[in-house]
Amino acid sequence: MTIVQLTEALDEFAGERDWGQFHSPKNLAMALSVEVAEIVELFQWVKEGDSHCLAPEKLADLQDEIGDVMIYLTNLAHKFDIDPLEAAAVKLEKNKKKYPADLVKGKSAKYTEYGGG
Amino acid sequence: MTIVQLTEALDEFAGERDWGQFHSPKNLAMALSVEVAEIVELFQWVKEGDSHCLAPEKLADLQDEIGDVMIYLTNLAHKFDIDPLEAAAVKLEKNKKKYPADLVKGKSAKYTEYGGG
Amino acid sequence: MTIVQLTEALDEFAGERDWGQFHSPKNLAMALSVEVAEIVELFQWVKEGDSHCLAPEKLADLQDEIGDVMIYLTNLAHKFDIDPLEAAAVKLEKNKKKYPADLVKGKSAKYTEYGGG
Amino acid sequence: MTIVQLTEALDEFAGERDWGQFHSPKNLAMALSVEVAEIVELFQWVKEGDSHCLAPEKLADLQDEIGDVMIYLTNLAHKFDIDPLEAAAVKLEKNKKKYPADLVKGKSAKYTEYGGG
Repeated sequence: MTIVQLTEALDEFAGERDWGQFHSPKNLAMALSVEVAEIVELFQWVKEGDSHCLAPEKLADLQDEIGDVMIYLTNLAHKFDIDPLEAAAVKLEKNKKKYPADLVKGKSAKYTEYGGG
Repeated sequence: MTIVQLTEALDEFAGERDWGQFHSPKNLAMALSVEVAEIVELFQWVKEGDSHCLAPEKLADLQDEIGDVMIYLTNLAHKFDIDPLEAAAVKLEKNKKKYPADLVKGKSAKYTEYGGG
Repeated sequence: MTIVQLTEALDEFAGERDWGQFHSPKNLAMALSVEVAEIVELFQWVKEGDSHCLAPEKLADLQDEIGDVMIYLTNLAHKFDIDPLEAAAVKLEKNKKKYPADLVKGKSAKYTEYGGG
Repeated sequence: MTIVQLTEALDEFAGERDWGQFHSPKNLAMALSVEVAEIVELFQWVKEGDSHCLAPEKLADLQDEIGDVMIYLTNLAHKFDIDPLEAAAVKLEKNKKKYPADLVKGKSAKYTEYGGG
């Protein structure tokens, strides 16, 4: 599935239910944050090293939540004619210039300052 | 840009900077929530009706933040071999069954209970 | 109940369950964000004007969630010997200086820039 | 400072600036989540074990952010005549019954299921 196909499928889904009226950018931003918190919930008490491996039912939950986040992100982005994948590509290019590899490589202590990506 | 291309570009970006060590799923979930909050910040004091239209500099910020969210979502999903677009497509099919259009259409008061999508 | 009494009660609660081991500041920050999202969830599809009034069961949920946020905030603050009420008082004084009443009063359009409080 | 004193000081602050118009519960919930994310940001790349100790400037930031969270939590709670400290006390009593110490003590693997507190 492509972003364009997902966008169209979401439009159709909301249209058939007359739910577009709830999808103001303000509301979509809130919904996006609620769904992301459900991802955070899966990892909140897990040790960092253990977070690489999830039990099968947690993994299924994670896939659902990632789907929800992608849905709301696409809905919100579409309101402003933004393609999330293109936005990511543009941001990645910015990050490459902001954090030159030879300057930041291996400087883990500086990671917070440099911000990551 | 496709998800596969973005995933590869992100891997290369992190690899060149030796930043993979910070990208535990636990940390990526936190970073994802921080970036989403930057989107929420753009809309927190805006009236719902006004949130459809952003000033140019806010719109540029929004595109950057959507890029950041997409980047961390893709990074996190990749740790578990999940494709965010496919996860969204699967979730959308679940939502179609959960909220049949003829049952929920126009029932705006029920929206919160039905959960949206 | 005072902050000191709450802090002591929370310490006793965690101690009796041997749960202090999970209460690293990093984990408490995540838990705090998860609980706040449960508050956001109550308001995500509600119109701004309607958000002043909640149905009784939603109000009970809100009280529970506010309790949870206060619990995690107090737990986190206590790790660094911070009193949340004192921190609020100090921050309020800073805000008074940062946003002089005669300068910002009624300038609603400037609210986002001034940041609020 | 007590909750009552803080509530009065916040009312006066908002009143002098005519900012009460922005303080709908919906908006306050959003602002609360944005401030909590600023706390999460402080810990996102820090190892769990290292999160117990913050550099002085980070500690000052944390105190500010805890103040902000307490301010918005108090503002939101006040809209519904809820006292955050009393709400925490009530929730703690519920948690004591839900998670009996003799049942959950030391069962760290069960922590996620039991939910913590």
